[in-house]
Amino acid sequence: MTDAARIETARPTEFDSLNAALKRAAGLVDRTLDEVLPRPEGLHARVPEAMRYAIFAGGKRLRPFLTIESAALFGVPQDRAARVAAAIEALHTYSLVHDDLPCMDDDDLRRGRPTAHRQFDEATAVLAGDALLTVAFGILADAKTHPSGEVRARLVAKLAEAGGSAGMIGGQMIDMLAPERDYGEAEVILLQALKTGALFEFACEAGAILAEASDDDQRRLRDFARGFGLAFQIADDIIDATGTAEQAGKAVGKDQDQGKATLISLYGLDKARSEAARLASEAAQALAPYGPAADDLRALPFFLLDRPS
Amino acid sequence: MTDAARIETARPTEFDSLNAALKRAAGLVDRTLDEVLPRPEGLHARVPEAMRYAIFAGGKRLRPFLTIESAALFGVPQDRAARVAAAIEALHTYSLVHDDLPCMDDDDLRRGRPTAHRQFDEATAVLAGDALLTVAFGILADAKTHPSGEVRARLVAKLAEAGGSAGMIGGQMIDMLAPERDYGEAEVILLQALKTGALFEFACEAGAILAEASDDDQRRLRDFARGFGLAFQIADDIIDATGTAEQAGKAVGKDQDQGKATLISLYGLDKARSEAARLASEAAQALAPYGPAADDLRALPFFLLDRPS
Repeated sequence: MTDAARIETARPTEFDSLNAALKRAAGLVDRTLDEVLPRPEGLHARVPEAMRYAIFAGGKRLRPFLTIESAALFGVPQDRAARVAAAIEALHTYSLVHDDLPCMDDDDLRRGRPTAHRQFDEATAVLAGDALLTVAFGILADAKTHPSGEVRARLVAKLAEAGGSAGMIGGQMIDMLAPERDYGEAEVILLQALKTGALFEFACEAGAILAEASDDDQRRLRDFARGFGLAFQIADDIIDATGTAEQAGKAVGKDQDQGKATLISLYGLDKARSEAARLASEAAQALAPYGPAADDLRALPFFLLDRPS
Repeated sequence: MTDAARIETARPTEFDSLNAALKRAAGLVDRTLDEVLPRPEGLHARVPEAMRYAIFAGGKRLRPFLTIESAALFGVPQDRAARVAAAIEALHTYSLVHDDLPCMDDDDLRRGRPTAHRQFDEATAVLAGDALLTVAFGILADAKTHPSGEVRARLVAKLAEAGGSAGMIGGQMIDMLAPERDYGEAEVILLQALKTGALFEFACEAGAILAEASDDDQRRLRDFARGFGLAFQIADDIIDATGTAEQAGKAVGKDQDQGKATLISLYGLDKARSEAARLASEAAQALAPYGPAADDLRALPFFLLDRPS
């Protein structure tokens, strides 16, 4: 058997467990979202309608998976992890809705469907995004999420930091300014660390916070998230650079069209791929103390890099 | 002395104490906001810059005043009340920044200066609004706001409700749909109760929550806020209908231009004025148990109705 053939047959098995875990997490978070999101009723039904349109669009639910899996390492009850995962997905979805607006990235297509402002209108998209951001904090603060108010307040504070002007929003601002600036490697890494990394970090750390686990546990999950986040971003950039709109479920080639520096334009495709593999291995190392329980988490970055492109 | 002359000379004295209390609250919340808001630093300095531009624009700080005064009724330490007041003002300011956007009310002027999207650009205004909303929850969840995590989580949950799709955002959605619908009295009252009333209610109730006061206390403050909120809205509509842009610090006459029903178009100016006075008296009644300590709070709706228009 050649090496290539071995990999061909080995891969489906390698990712079977992860694939099943991703499906389970997606099902769990979707049921939870359906419970906690407002229902379209009354004169203002249009906002809940647009919130649900944007969030129930068949996303991969990577962030919910990270929270549910990291919480499982510490035996956190699943319904609590699912609520935090729902809050994170709500916040993530708001950022997509606002980033897609004409004044931002001006995208018509998201997850293969019209973006919220195309399906409804701009005002509704702004308001639905605002409402998804708001409800994210409401879910975390609700006593159903954890019996300890300290834990709930800590989750809120950490999400506000990850999603705020020195986190995700700061990353989007840096990205918006990219066409008029000449970013190098350090700036592109900072951009990604803020724009996507900060929320991945919270998604992983949240499991340890829910468990009131040790500082060491929280640090390990943050370390995993940092390596994972950059590997994810490179995988995403590879799709943008080499994939089709059909594969990506959104417009591709935009970074290049807009003259934006990415790790691929800086490193070239080959070095970017090998750097991503190195980051994925490093991330996996951070979870060594948890043994086989963390296998699915460790496999995720390799799985994303393995996608067709 | 004629009646008119008596009112002329009596009024300055009547509102002296309230005027001083409004100034104190504004100074306190402005110092707190300067401490808790991010500073413009690094590649994404533009977001904190726009956040500060929008919030430090000489607003009346009515919501902070309500929180600081209601907290004082129960002897809450002033720095805690000031932090909650800062969070509420941050959330209020985000709603102004987003409501002013071209796709919403399309306003160029706010508090007598260019709106955020005119001073910066639309993308920056969307992001600065998002960041103000996010930081509001971060401020509440921080341990400096209250030693009890339960209290902090409760404040977050209540603010998320007041600001969410069944509160302020729902009110703005109903308002956006107004030109194409034929709202009657019930719809206009609901619109205002959601769009401005819900946050006034939280601003008042927050004082009692910070104090861990009784359910009766919380109810009284909510009752006050409801009457106050409608009286405020009528006062605001009177300025929109009869004032100048210079008095209002923003464009006026827009409700009429857009064919939007208001309590003034429904009642006529005289009935609207008398209805506002009735609501102000009713609101004042709800605070009767607190005696002279609540004098400034009780005076506020009368003061707003007394503004030149």
